[in-house]
Amino acid sequence: MGHGDPSVFPCFRTAPEAVDAVAGALRSWEHNSYSTCVGLEPARRSIAKYLSHNLPYELSPDDVYLTSGCAQAIEIICSVLARPGANILLPRPGYLFYEARAVFNGMEARYYDLLPEKDWEVDIHGVQALADENTVAMVIVYTYEHLAKVAETARKLGIFVITDEVYAHLTFGERKFVPMGVFGEVAPVFTLGSISKRWLVPGWRLGWIVTNDPNGVFQRTKVVDSIKSYLDISSDPPTFVQGAIPNLLENTKEEFFDKTVKILRETSDICWEKLKGISAITCPSKPEGSMFVMVKLDLTCLQDIKDDMDFCCRLAKEELVVLLPGCAVGYKNWLRITFAIDPSSLEDGLDRFKSFCLRHSKPTK
Amino acid sequence: MGHGDPSVFPCFRTAPEAVDAVAGALRSWEHNSYSTCVGLEPARRSIAKYLSHNLPYELSPDDVYLTSGCAQAIEIICSVLARPGANILLPRPGYLFYEARAVFNGMEARYYDLLPEKDWEVDIHGVQALADENTVAMVIVYTYEHLAKVAETARKLGIFVITDEVYAHLTFGERKFVPMGVFGEVAPVFTLGSISKRWLVPGWRLGWIVTNDPNGVFQRTKVVDSIKSYLDISSDPPTFVQGAIPNLLENTKEEFFDKTVKILRETSDICWEKLKGISAITCPSKPEGSMFVMVKLDLTCLQDIKDDMDFCCRLAKEELVVLLPGCAVGYKNWLRITFAIDPSSLEDGLDRFKSFCLRHSKPTK
Repeated sequence: MGHGDPSVFPCFRTAPEAVDAVAGALRSWEHNSYSTCVGLEPARRSIAKYLSHNLPYELSPDDVYLTSGCAQAIEIICSVLARPGANILLPRPGYLFYEARAVFNGMEARYYDLLPEKDWEVDIHGVQALADENTVAMVIVYTYEHLAKVAETARKLGIFVITDEVYAHLTFGERKFVPMGVFGEVAPVFTLGSISKRWLVPGWRLGWIVTNDPNGVFQRTKVVDSIKSYLDISSDPPTFVQGAIPNLLENTKEEFFDKTVKILRETSDICWEKLKGISAITCPSKPEGSMFVMVKLDLTCLQDIKDDMDFCCRLAKEELVVLLPGCAVGYKNWLRITFAIDPSSLEDGLDRFKSFCLRHSKPTK
Repeated sequence: MGHGDPSVFPCFRTAPEAVDAVAGALRSWEHNSYSTCVGLEPARRSIAKYLSHNLPYELSPDDVYLTSGCAQAIEIICSVLARPGANILLPRPGYLFYEARAVFNGMEARYYDLLPEKDWEVDIHGVQALADENTVAMVIVYTYEHLAKVAETARKLGIFVITDEVYAHLTFGERKFVPMGVFGEVAPVFTLGSISKRWLVPGWRLGWIVTNDPNGVFQRTKVVDSIKSYLDISSDPPTFVQGAIPNLLENTKEEFFDKTVKILRETSDICWEKLKGISAITCPSKPEGSMFVMVKLDLTCLQDIKDDMDFCCRLAKEELVVLLPGCAVGYKNWLRITFAIDPSSLEDGLDRFKSFCLRHSKPTK
C-alpha cells in the first residue's frame, strides 16, 4: 500500500489490446531501427488526437515529444528550464522526483501548499508570495475545477505551467478530469503524461511532453528548440513501443477503462470506510481520483511513535504493511495510502493498520 | 550508407529467438510493473555471465547496471564523472555523442588521435601529453591488441578507462574481439554495451554499464554510489525488455551471429574492392570489425568540392547516396562509409559514389 503500481494484481491487469498492440509492433520487423529523436510520427499523431478530445483546440503531432515514461519528461523539462538562479514552484504534498531533477539541474525548488481542508486545492496566495522574477514555472500534480484560477495566476506571474497528468481520467467522484491544457491560451502549459497509469503498465516506459500553447509562446521563446536539442542527446523509448501507440490508443475498449475506474471506486470506498474507524488518523476528504489518499497522523493519541517515518517502519515490521510516510511527499506526519490494490488485500492491510494503531494508542484516562 | 543501423535490410534481421524472448516477457504479465533502478536481477545476472565468458575473472550481477541503450550509459558515466574543471580524453575519429554529453555536464573534451597508418591504434604518446591532474577518464571506442598498453597508460595516469563495446564480437578479420575488461586489474574499466548491434535491434534500447574492476577501486572511490544515485533519478529500460534478456542471451543460436559476421565480411570485401578503384580517396586499412570504413578524401584531385561536408551534400543531391562526412566524427576531410547494408544496394551505392568522384575529378593534364 506504499507505491503507485497496481499492475501486479490480477484485477489491475492491462488491456489485452495493449499487449497485442506492442506484440504486433514487435513482430512487424518494422520497428527495430532507431527512432527519430522526437519520436515516431504516427505515435505522436495518435497521442495528439487522443489528447485533443478534451481540449477546445486541436493539437498537432509537432506538439508531442515522446519520452521514456513521465520520468524522462520531468528530466527534460527541468533541464530545459534551468538557468543560473532559477526557481520552480512545486506542490506539497507532491512527487519528490521533481525536486531531485530540479536541484540536479541547479534550480531552487520552492513549495506551495495544497490545502487539505479545501479538497487539496492549490494555495493561490502562497503561489503568488513564492514567485519572483527568477521563477520559471509551477508544477500542478493534480487538477481541480479551479484550474482557471491557477492559469490566471500563472499568466499574472508570467510563468509556464507544467501539469503532470499521469493520473488523467482516473477519476471516480462527482467531478470529471479536466486537462490543464484547456487553459493553454491563458498561460502556456507543458502537459506531461504517459500510458503507465491509465493502461496499468508503468514498466513499459512510454510517456510524453505536450506543448499546450495555441499562442505559440514556446516557439517564440525557443523553449521548443531546447527540448529538441535535449532529445538529440537523450535515449528514446523503444521504437516498437512507439510503433504500438496508434493501435494501443485506438483499440483499447471503453470497458477496460470503466472496469479500472469501477475497481478504484470500490477500493477507495473500502479505504474511506475502514479509515473512519481509526482514531489516530484523520482523513480530510474522500479521494475522487488517482490511487492514493493522504491521512493525517495524530501523534498525541499514540505512544512510542516519534513521527511518520517511525510509524511506517514499525508498521512494516510488526504488521508487514507498507505505507508511504508523508515526509516522502514533502508532508511531515501524514501518511500516503495506496488503495489501488486488490480489495481483499486492501481490507486485510487496513485491518492490520487499525490493529497497529490500537496497540500503540495511549490508554484513555 | 551514412549511419550504423542495418536493421531495415532483410539480411540484417534480428534473431527470431530475440523476438520470441521479448514477446514472451510481454505476454507473461510479470513485467508490467516498475523495475528496480539498477535493473531486474535476472537480467543483470545473465549479462554478467554473458560478459564473463571473455574475461579472466567472474563478473557479478552487481557489476551490471541496465540502461536505455548505450546512449543512456554514456549519459550516466559523463554525469557521474563530471566535476568543475574536469576533462575527459576522447578518440578522434569517434562518436560525437560523448563530447555532447561531456560538455553538457561541464567537462572539457580533449581529443587523442587514432592512427590510420597503424590500423587505427591509439596514439599512446598523444594520450600522455593530453592528460593532466583534472583528467577523469579516457574513452576507447574500438579495441585492438595493444589494449594492454592502453591499460598500462591509464594506470600510469591514474585515470579510468571507459570502453564502448557496442560492436563487440562483430569482427571478421584475423584478430578476435578482446574486451578491455581483460585488463580491469591494471586499470579500472567501465564497459558500455548493448544488444543494439550484435542483435541488430538498435530500436529496442537495452544497454548496460559494467564495472570491470576486480580491485574494487570504483567501490572505494564511491563512483558506484554515484551511478546508483543517478539511476534513482533516471528512467529505466522497459521492464519486459529487461525480463526478456535471460532468454535472449541464452537462446540466440551461434548460427545467427555467424551469419551476421559472414554478411559483414562479404559487404566489407565488396566495399574494399570497389573503393580501390576510386582515385579521389585512400583507404588506409581494410576493415576488420564494426560496420564502417574510414576513407580519406584527396581534395586536390577534385574540382568544385570545398570539403567533406560539401562532398557529402552534393553526393546526396546528385546520386542519392548518403555518407557521413568525417567532421561528424571529428575527422575533417575524411568520409565514413557504412558497409552494413544489403550487398546489392551497397554495390549500387559505391558505383554511384565512383561516378560522382569521376565526374568531379580535375582533368588530368
